[in-house]
Amino acid sequence: MIQRPPAEPGMAEDEIDTPALVLDLDAFEANLATMAEATKAAGVRLRPHAKTHKSPVIARLQGRAGAVGQCVQKVAEAEILAWGGIEDILVSNEVVSPRKLARLAALARFCKIGVCADSAAGIAAIEAAAAAADVSIEVLVEIEIGAGRCGTSPGAEAVALARRVADSRHLTFGGLQAYHGKAQHLRTPEERRAAIASASALTAETVEALRQAGLACRTVGGAGTGTFALEAKSGVYNELQAGSYIFMDADYGRNQPAPPFRHSLFVLASVMSVTRDGMAVVDAGHKAVAVDSGPPAVWGHDDVRYAGPSDEHGQLFWESGDRRFSLDQRVRLVPGHCDPTVDRYDWYVGVRRGRVECLWPVAARGAMA
Amino acid sequence: MIQRPPAEPGMAEDEIDTPALVLDLDAFEANLATMAEATKAAGVRLRPHAKTHKSPVIARLQGRAGAVGQCVQKVAEAEILAWGGIEDILVSNEVVSPRKLARLAALARFCKIGVCADSAAGIAAIEAAAAAADVSIEVLVEIEIGAGRCGTSPGAEAVALARRVADSRHLTFGGLQAYHGKAQHLRTPEERRAAIASASALTAETVEALRQAGLACRTVGGAGTGTFALEAKSGVYNELQAGSYIFMDADYGRNQPAPPFRHSLFVLASVMSVTRDGMAVVDAGHKAVAVDSGPPAVWGHDDVRYAGPSDEHGQLFWESGDRRFSLDQRVRLVPGHCDPTVDRYDWYVGVRRGRVECLWPVAARGAMA
Repeated sequence: MIQRPPAEPGMAEDEIDTPALVLDLDAFEANLATMAEATKAAGVRLRPHAKTHKSPVIARLQGRAGAVGQCVQKVAEAEILAWGGIEDILVSNEVVSPRKLARLAALARFCKIGVCADSAAGIAAIEAAAAAADVSIEVLVEIEIGAGRCGTSPGAEAVALARRVADSRHLTFGGLQAYHGKAQHLRTPEERRAAIASASALTAETVEALRQAGLACRTVGGAGTGTFALEAKSGVYNELQAGSYIFMDADYGRNQPAPPFRHSLFVLASVMSVTRDGMAVVDAGHKAVAVDSGPPAVWGHDDVRYAGPSDEHGQLFWESGDRRFSLDQRVRLVPGHCDPTVDRYDWYVGVRRGRVECLWPVAARGAMA
Repeated sequence: MIQRPPAEPGMAEDEIDTPALVLDLDAFEANLATMAEATKAAGVRLRPHAKTHKSPVIARLQGRAGAVGQCVQKVAEAEILAWGGIEDILVSNEVVSPRKLARLAALARFCKIGVCADSAAGIAAIEAAAAAADVSIEVLVEIEIGAGRCGTSPGAEAVALARRVADSRHLTFGGLQAYHGKAQHLRTPEERRAAIASASALTAETVEALRQAGLACRTVGGAGTGTFALEAKSGVYNELQAGSYIFMDADYGRNQPAPPFRHSLFVLASVMSVTRDGMAVVDAGHKAVAVDSGPPAVWGHDDVRYAGPSDEHGQLFWESGDRRFSLDQRVRLVPGHCDPTVDRYDWYVGVRRGRVECLWPVAARGAMA
């Protein structure tokens, strides 16, 4: 079942039912503008990642701010964006199952659809689905340039796959997918610069090898919120795929320096038990906030730690002072990791200066397949 | 949006779309029977925890196996069970918000409803909601007996709160909530025995203090899958609240000895990239499987490790042999922690001996408020 909306427009923030996913609209809009200016100044395209927000509404707002389309990781996400009016969607990920590819091909009837491949078998499966649906699908060849996850080797192997795409009747070779996920959360600027310099060099060599083979890259895509400024000025990337910049999670806030975005996304929790000094219990645990990148920060209380989460509880600890929180008091948590946190909720509650302004569905919540 | 079901009855397991939440029905039914026998033999009641399964269907099957009712942690879970036909529901947790309590009181019109309290303010709020709805609600006083989370102190403080409940016109004093969450995953039997012996002693003292004050405990509730056998023979607990026993997660499997249940719950994943020897990538990452209690185990492949999860990817590593997995191959993962894993899905796919037998909605998925 879809859960009931936890608020209504016009309410005060303190009246929102909890746990709730609260979006500070001023901060969110500032983040949209900051990224739009940065990509425009660098002369690169922005194709933000919908795996972060899972929302056709947010995708549309990003489009108004200049984004050329959206990235997704899953076919189910592509469906929800396509059905919600987004017209240019790249699955920045391998899809190899015939059933999933048939669903993706069905979308290509009314949207521009791209997908990644890192194997000949994968390309054959995409071609078969596109042929069966009589549509055209753009394919980016993914190269492994440091993340150690998906992707073929840069250079000759990538060229061989690109040739195979170009020779497939229903496929268009779109270019390269070259995302260095591990670089995003490297803490120092030196580490990030070194990682993206290496990734950019491998990518540039592959672009050149493709050019020599007569295969032009319309798109060289990659980058995330932690490193986008480096890819933007690399001279080889022309399409950035950052997602988290709209929200800024607590973990990105630990990068030195932090990316130039404001925390706009919060889990609003309520204090449900205050039986001892120095500790309060809130109603937001593992099911309400992802802790895979560390615990959430407690907004406005730098000396209070969130710790000891269990499924439905979190504990707030502080060193000094007796009763810091009262029963049923609202507390904003800054998620350590936004993407899997958003995916736990059915609704965004948009808040501006303490008032609920709007509700947006997390329409692709749970869209994993 | 609710996601489409990933399978249909009659399909082979390998045809299930992934990631999917797969329930091995033979193992699940064996677990129901094992717990039913254990509680019957010990002469204690079983009130399983629906925070694990989030399903009125599973609640009904537990009822057929002798359970007296269900526990939940959240009002939204209570609503979904009540609307799904479950007639005796205990919120084994504090609820202090007037809006939530009004919703809970509304359920008490057609169900038996209980809830916990650990403060005078909480009791007053429950009484106000019950009075406004003109219903009766049973209240258990929660005591803190080792978990260090919610709960008032055992002894005199608990007696004072129980008195306050008994003196409230629309409330019934039901007894004590005495759950030692931290004991569940202590690894050795000695540690668990010591923890539950201490919890039982504090609880027994409080039961006796209540008795001397003329306040009888109809219910002394607590226990989980890691320790239930100890509470069952404690002589003080009479209602067990285990939840995970129906599924058995990988983390409970690390207890020595492991609880006497079979792994019945799996995240079915597919291999989506196999570009290098010794590693394959599956389509199940943080959004598909909870890693807060460690990574999932790879079912049937003891020498393969799941590691390096990102939002939508997991990596399988092995030491020897070249290609162990082929593209689009299905792999069963045993979640490290079942409860938050279940909460990411809209559907259970019930499987028996390799065939899909049924689909059950995870009806209370996301029911956090």
